[in-house]
Amino acid sequence: MKVKALIEYDGTEYGGWQVQKNRITVEEKIEQALKTLTGETVKVVGSGRTDAGVHARGQVAHFCVEKENIPAERFAFALNVLLPNDIKILKTEKAKECFDARKSAKRKTYKYTFYVSDTVRPLKERFATRIKAVPDLFAMRMAAEVLKGEHDFKNYCASGGGAKTSVREIYDLEVEEFYDEIIIKVTGNGFLYNMVRIIAGTLLAVGEHKLDLNDVIKSVNGGERIPTQKTLPAKGLCLESVKYE
Amino acid sequence: MKVKALIEYDGTEYGGWQVQKNRITVEEKIEQALKTLTGETVKVVGSGRTDAGVHARGQVAHFCVEKENIPAERFAFALNVLLPNDIKILKTEKAKECFDARKSAKRKTYKYTFYVSDTVRPLKERFATRIKAVPDLFAMRMAAEVLKGEHDFKNYCASGGGAKTSVREIYDLEVEEFYDEIIIKVTGNGFLYNMVRIIAGTLLAVGEHKLDLNDVIKSVNGGERIPTQKTLPAKGLCLESVKYE
Repeated sequence: MKVKALIEYDGTEYGGWQVQKNRITVEEKIEQALKTLTGETVKVVGSGRTDAGVHARGQVAHFCVEKENIPAERFAFALNVLLPNDIKILKTEKAKECFDARKSAKRKTYKYTFYVSDTVRPLKERFATRIKAVPDLFAMRMAAEVLKGEHDFKNYCASGGGAKTSVREIYDLEVEEFYDEIIIKVTGNGFLYNMVRIIAGTLLAVGEHKLDLNDVIKSVNGGERIPTQKTLPAKGLCLESVKYE
Repeated sequence: MKVKALIEYDGTEYGGWQVQKNRITVEEKIEQALKTLTGETVKVVGSGRTDAGVHARGQVAHFCVEKENIPAERFAFALNVLLPNDIKILKTEKAKECFDARKSAKRKTYKYTFYVSDTVRPLKERFATRIKAVPDLFAMRMAAEVLKGEHDFKNYCASGGGAKTSVREIYDLEVEEFYDEIIIKVTGNGFLYNMVRIIAGTLLAVGEHKLDLNDVIKSVNGGERIPTQKTLPAKGLCLESVKYE
């Protein structure tokens, strides 16, 4: 039986999604819980990796189990008993045999959250990155318009991703103000390694007038990599949702 | 010189505000930072204790230092360099000699936050208490009206507080709905030991129709303690602000 799972996690304590040496990962915790529950060694396939410290409100994964004694919808409850409070399965359901959480994914939405404050705010630090002043939101929204659509995002990618092509389509890219937070919300057909954090860093640099619109225009579709593009901290990033057909 | 400090903390890792044996407290961390900064053994006096695991967005404290070489307003910055990211001083200023963070406090505001979900939500758990369904907000607001004003709150107090009188005045008590959260916001001239958490638990019980309005009416001003009143978890509680004249 193939099972599709919707997963939320606070990534602070984990070395990311994918199993690796030396650090405990989210995938590993779920695989351990499945082993305890079913006695089987089960591989959990996520829609994609999230890096160390990145959070998820809507990660999707699939796994296959031999035994059929637990109904697919009951896996969420049974696994949650075994999982820590910073990783929980919000829902499980039976998936078609052709469903693949990674390969079948059609669009993903991420949010990057900043909070505006002169000082570090203990109640904000865990899920957001601090900036000292409200950036120029109009300039950020103009730059967001430039990045929307299908482009070669090779300048918006850290090394080590191993993707075949750096062309991706961004369906939506919004800059929202919510009380003392600035939130960048991006939806696309897929993202290169570190792409969302580099996009967020670029938009922030535009909002701080360290870059202008022309720098952004030049940076897509084979132009120059912008030297000041920085990869923002993982803690501000959250995988919001993954959509399938 | 007497200094007044505005403090924010994520209480998750601490044994509360006040110095005690066996557990590290917020007061202790600030006193350690003051010792490192000034070389003096400085006592920090908070507006009141917060229990283990309770958070603060606006705790106020005072302390006195002998040396005058650091301007009062610079203490925030200097202490923040030494403090961990889950305790920060948002502001410091010179206080009058007669100012006492505890004795001069005129009104305090606390918030108790619930989130509504069938399952534990990793991104909500740290600062809120889970409830499974949206409670009857109208009933909760009616009960809140009963508790407003000056009453003998002896039935809304855990043992161990040592207060001389159990009469307190509640100036404001609101039940707010904010997306998937229910927030109880209470302002009063002071609170007995565990009083806010017991008020929140009582309002929740009314909202879940486990108590009715008559139970609440009887529970104040010398009536019977309601048997089902429970003290809710610390993590949902946050000291929002302390006001002085």
